Amino acid sequence: MVPYNQKNPFSYVFKFHKADTFRKLLPFIVLFCLYAWAVAYLVKEYYHLPDSSPLHKVTLMHALLGFAISTLLVFRTNTAYDRWWEGRKLWGALVNNSRNLAMKLNAILPENMVEDRTFFSKVIPAFALVLHDHLHKENTRTELFEDAQHGHIFNEIDEDKHIPNQVGAIIYKRVQKLLAQKVITGEQLLFINAELQSLADICGACERIKNTPIPFSYSVFIKKFIFIYVATLPFGYVFDLGYLVIPVTAFILYVLASLELIAEEIEDPFGGDQNDVPTDKIAANIQKNVADIL
Amino acid sequence: MVPYNQKNPFSYVFKFHKADTFRKLLPFIVLFCLYAWAVAYLVKEYYHLPDSSPLHKVTLMHALLGFAISTLLVFRTNTAYDRWWEGRKLWGALVNNSRNLAMKLNAILPENMVEDRTFFSKVIPAFALVLHDHLHKENTRTELFEDAQHGHIFNEIDEDKHIPNQVGAIIYKRVQKLLAQKVITGEQLLFINAELQSLADICGACERIKNTPIPFSYSVFIKKFIFIYVATLPFGYVFDLGYLVIPVTAFILYVLASLELIAEEIEDPFGGDQNDVPTDKIAANIQKNVADIL
Amino acid sequence: MVPYNQKNPFSYVFKFHKADTFRKLLPFIVLFCLYAWAVAYLVKEYYHLPDSSPLHKVTLMHALLGFAISTLLVFRTNTAYDRWWEGRKLWGALVNNSRNLAMKLNAILPENMVEDRTFFSKVIPAFALVLHDHLHKENTRTELFEDAQHGHIFNEIDEDKHIPNQVGAIIYKRVQKLLAQKVITGEQLLFINAELQSLADICGACERIKNTPIPFSYSVFIKKFIFIYVATLPFGYVFDLGYLVIPVTAFILYVLASLELIAEEIEDPFGGDQNDVPTDKIAANIQKNVADIL
Amino acid sequence: MVPYNQKNPFSYVFKFHKADTFRKLLPFIVLFCLYAWAVAYLVKEYYHLPDSSPLHKVTLMHALLGFAISTLLVFRTNTAYDRWWEGRKLWGALVNNSRNLAMKLNAILPENMVEDRTFFSKVIPAFALVLHDHLHKENTRTELFEDAQHGHIFNEIDEDKHIPNQVGAIIYKRVQKLLAQKVITGEQLLFINAELQSLADICGACERIKNTPIPFSYSVFIKKFIFIYVATLPFGYVFDLGYLVIPVTAFILYVLASLELIAEEIEDPFGGDQNDVPTDKIAANIQKNVADIL
Amino acid sequence: MVPYNQKNPFSYVFKFHKADTFRKLLPFIVLFCLYAWAVAYLVKEYYHLPDSSPLHKVTLMHALLGFAISTLLVFRTNTAYDRWWEGRKLWGALVNNSRNLAMKLNAILPENMVEDRTFFSKVIPAFALVLHDHLHKENTRTELFEDAQHGHIFNEIDEDKHIPNQVGAIIYKRVQKLLAQKVITGEQLLFINAELQSLADICGACERIKNTPIPFSYSVFIKKFIFIYVATLPFGYVFDLGYLVIPVTAFILYVLASLELIAEEIEDPFGGDQNDVPTDKIAANIQKNVADIL
Repeated sequence: MVPYNQKNPFSYVFKFHKADTFRKLLPFIVLFCLYAWAVAYLVKEYYHLPDSSPLHKVTLMHALLGFAISTLLVFRTNTAYDRWWEGRKLWGALVNNSRNLAMKLNAILPENMVEDRTFFSKVIPAFALVLHDHLHKENTRTELFEDAQHGHIFNEIDEDKHIPNQVGAIIYKRVQKLLAQKVITGEQLLFINAELQSLADICGACERIKNTPIPFSYSVFIKKFIFIYVATLPFGYVFDLGYLVIPVTAFILYVLASLELIAEEIEDPFGGDQNDVPTDKIAANIQKNVADIL
Repeated sequence: MVPYNQKNPFSYVFKFHKADTFRKLLPFIVLFCLYAWAVAYLVKEYYHLPDSSPLHKVTLMHALLGFAISTLLVFRTNTAYDRWWEGRKLWGALVNNSRNLAMKLNAILPENMVEDRTFFSKVIPAFALVLHDHLHKENTRTELFEDAQHGHIFNEIDEDKHIPNQVGAIIYKRVQKLLAQKVITGEQLLFINAELQSLADICGACERIKNTPIPFSYSVFIKKFIFIYVATLPFGYVFDLGYLVIPVTAFILYVLASLELIAEEIEDPFGGDQNDVPTDKIAANIQKNVADIL
Repeated sequence: MVPYNQKNPFSYVFKFHKADTFRKLLPFIVLFCLYAWAVAYLVKEYYHLPDSSPLHKVTLMHALLGFAISTLLVFRTNTAYDRWWEGRKLWGALVNNSRNLAMKLNAILPENMVEDRTFFSKVIPAFALVLHDHLHKENTRTELFEDAQHGHIFNEIDEDKHIPNQVGAIIYKRVQKLLAQKVITGEQLLFINAELQSLADICGACERIKNTPIPFSYSVFIKKFIFIYVATLPFGYVFDLGYLVIPVTAFILYVLASLELIAEEIEDPFGGDQNDVPTDKIAANIQKNVADIL
Repeated sequence: MVPYNQKNPFSYVFKFHKADTFRKLLPFIVLFCLYAWAVAYLVKEYYHLPDSSPLHKVTLMHALLGFAISTLLVFRTNTAYDRWWEGRKLWGALVNNSRNLAMKLNAILPENMVEDRTFFSKVIPAFALVLHDHLHKENTRTELFEDAQHGHIFNEIDEDKHIPNQVGAIIYKRVQKLLAQKVITGEQLLFINAELQSLADICGACERIKNTPIPFSYSVFIKKFIFIYVATLPFGYVFDLGYLVIPVTAFILYVLASLELIAEEIEDPFGGDQNDVPTDKIAANIQKNVADIL
Repeated sequence: MVPYNQKNPFSYVFKFHKADTFRKLLPFIVLFCLYAWAVAYLVKEYYHLPDSSPLHKVTLMHALLGFAISTLLVFRTNTAYDRWWEGRKLWGALVNNSRNLAMKLNAILPENMVEDRTFFSKVIPAFALVLHDHLHKENTRTELFEDAQHGHIFNEIDEDKHIPNQVGAIIYKRVQKLLAQKVITGEQLLFINAELQSLADICGACERIKNTPIPFSYSVFIKKFIFIYVATLPFGYVFDLGYLVIPVTAFILYVLASLELIAEEIEDPFGGDQNDVPTDKIAANIQKNVADIL
């Protein structure tokens, strides 16, 4: 995400940030301007088509489908935004559950069980970190958690298998050991159940969002629709607009393609784009919070 | 689902995948072109109707209802997408609950209770597999889980009755046996309650989505509306567009019918279509995950 | 609900099913055609109003409000659909909870407690059946559950009071008895709590949907809006369309009134209409499932 | 709420109920007709402005913003409806939880603990009644629950403090007393936890809906937008419509203002309007249900 | 939030409150009027462009994109409203959970454990207060809770670390102490689990809303779209409207920019704006409620 200054809402109109769709679409827009120019030249100067040409009335189609294309693109944006926001919520829930688990264990574990306390202060943020790595297909930085005392635990992780699952399993095992040792009671096990459970739930939900783009035929259809719609625009408009057809249709292309582009970008909130959920910062934040508590 | 390359967003404009609505609609579009040509021929060359003909003004109706048809189709797409996404979420939840159940049992069951551990490592993914078979009306592949030790359990399944329910009942029975044997305590029963419960809940929710298409009168109404709308289009547009009416109205047909077609395809996410939830892959994934854990 | 063949999506265009809005609206449409004909006759042949008549420009209003009426009707459909889908989900949840409760009791109750097992195998589906009867104001068919052994339990039900509540209370009483007898433990009571609770929750939610139509002033407003909108349509359109105004405005009436009609039909999913939730089939299904399990 | 006959859907078109927006808007509409008449008189007969006057083209603005005003008003209706429906759901949940709590206590409390049974059969519906009074700022009718045996409990309620909270606290206290007396066990406390908790949750959620109108600047903006939009309408339309501008613009005013009016009415579902959630009937219903059970 | 009188719905049309977008946009609107005047002067009086100028037809673009800009802005408003409403719901949940926790502890803690009772009557509202301060980056007013008896607890809070977490941890610690002292049982710990857990959940969710504006590229795109759309409006409209183009386009600017402005304001419900969630009042309310109960 790019933090932005909300005090001066219109200051971004003239700036072209890296995440700006205008920058990404620039090559397309330039190409399209050449195309529109060619159409204008052919219609107006080469064939000298009169205003009564049937081609002029293709605008009827654009007017009729203008509503359809707009609503479709807003629906597209809407579903993409919902996924992005769900991704953000999942990581928010990871923060909450990590904090709650740390606070509960802090209260349950006697002050003198130092080893167990450090274990959890390492392993809770470790889950967030390996989940970040898992979602971004990065090498897992478990070394962060390796110290003389707990290194052997993380060393047992098999990097070819599902890593967050293995970290989850380690946490469950340790909790069970504490139960067997009567450090925690059966009721206290239930007390921390929701937090333990949420770890695998959040991991699975992130994987779901990451692995499931919107239905393929839908995505292809929208691209075809935009392409044909915009490619036929200059034919109808050139009669009324002359060479002005170039900036006008380019602007329409910019609007429609931007919506599609933004939707594609935000529908995978774990892709490493500018607008994505800052999973690394959130994981670091969890690490800090848990260290403060335990 | 068809995985697609998100780096090159406009590469699909000129390709015609199997799941592409254009391929499916092609026969309709060809027929419609012939129809539009016949209308154009009759109006322009046979009857020589003048532009002042009242038929020309049928376009008024198309403009007025253009909003209605677009919003309706987007609403239609929206509900279909919600069902598809709900189906995907249910199978995501099945993954999460299978993993959590495996991790919890892994922690609870002593290392030396090998038979119980293999039992659960077989029966948890079995639920996902029989649910896949159940939703796709395939023969149940319980043989996958048959081995010398547990074969007799799966052999008791009556293939004429509801199979996922029977697998669920087997799981509950075994858990209860472990409780009676004091391997697990009452609190630990509650500890795994949410996961056990979710199995039947997910199965029932998938059945609900599969068995309940959108209300029949609604579905019929949309088809009639599109049909009449598109069939009357050439009459109004032929006066302005001449023979150009053929590609123009064919494109409008393509847009409207595609939306309806995509909605029909994705509203049943367990139908075996290209865009459907890949329940077999998810079930295989659960099998792999559970085997890694237990 | 009417099952329909999704393979041949456009086959319904020419058929007129019982649930088809076209059949229900036919008398209105015929009346309206007469009205539109009268308007056309008066304007065109009796008064010979010229195209420059201000009446011609009433179309301005229809264009301006065309968007409002479409979005309103789609919003109306949307809320009606949400209620219908919620009703369907509630009965889906009833299936899930009945199954889970049966599976759990099957595991908990010793094989030799035959009387208790038959009791639950009768009383769980009984809840679904009396809820169906309650929602459709039918006589309760508790006789289905009467046998020598349990008849006296159902005979105590007072048919003038709230019947599903009484069945619910019977279930709670029996569970409590089993707890007092130490057949089930305190933890097992919590284990089946969610399912027991859901029975009254589902019943209450169905009643809520059934008893609460959309706000009255909203419903009245939409009807008035459609009526005035459609009744004034022929005046504006007759100048351009002549006698073609009859089919054109009749089609617009068909579209707008269909949306309102479908919304009215599906907003009460327990009304016994063609599109309604098949509560009797679902209840029978629960009976079958529970009998298979217990 | 006004119950209505769904069999005859179009019978309301010519009736003007008390809740009908037409009745409430009548004075505004009459005033506006005078205004539109004045505009028509000035433009057509006093200044004799020609059709080529720029004023004529103000309609361009109305066409452009027609979409915006319609979508905005539908969004407004949507959020208002959501709040109304949430309010209805909360009271539905209150019914469910009161019933479940009564059924559970009926099963838990021995038949001979008459005093405790009457206590709960009085105090559970009392919560609904005081919540109704609290939301409608009426005097609390706790006298309904006063009898020789329990009068002293309700007499302790301080009418200047938050009354539903005090009733909630009384319930919790009694439950705790039963726990101390070992009438209910720790597991049974958890068994009824969800219902106890829901009482304060429902109360708080109703207060939230009641105290939080939609953002002030949004509400003001919509009113200004409608006002300016409608006030400028006659200027553009008078050239084409002559004195017909009066009914046409009055109808547009009726449509837009009705949507805003309905939204304002239903956004507070506890205001005592015709369309509001019938909290008094629901509370009476709870009283009857609980009396039947306990 | 600004309380407003719902009886007189149209009284706000002529008032300009502090939160009114008109006041905030006034400088932009004045500037824009000058710009529109300059365009009108150049087109009409300096260059004397004829109506047949291609510039005249730029209105085609505005008509085509009119749908897109309206739907986009309503979608924008919608997501902003959802965040605002979620923020309000979270603080409503904080009220509910604080009340429930107080009522439960009131019932659980013996009357004579005065110190523990005052502790919770101080620390529960303290959480709401420090959360308010945390969200508004104000100095924490823990002094409110400092008294001879508990001052030392709050003095231990490290103001450079996450304060709500520390208050949460204090609550958990005390609950655990009561459990160790056998004042509360294991079941009672589970009884208050949901309320304890909700504190950190609500805090995390508020932080999520506060820290995550809508995707940057989306926000920038909307601003650019509005800017170019409005800046090109006068060119097309001046031919038809003459100097009337100034108020007309200024009004369109007012409508579009207001929607964006309101969305920006309400999307952060904890920013201290006029329309924001009144977290300080809610926190004070919690303090009063809890004091009444405990």
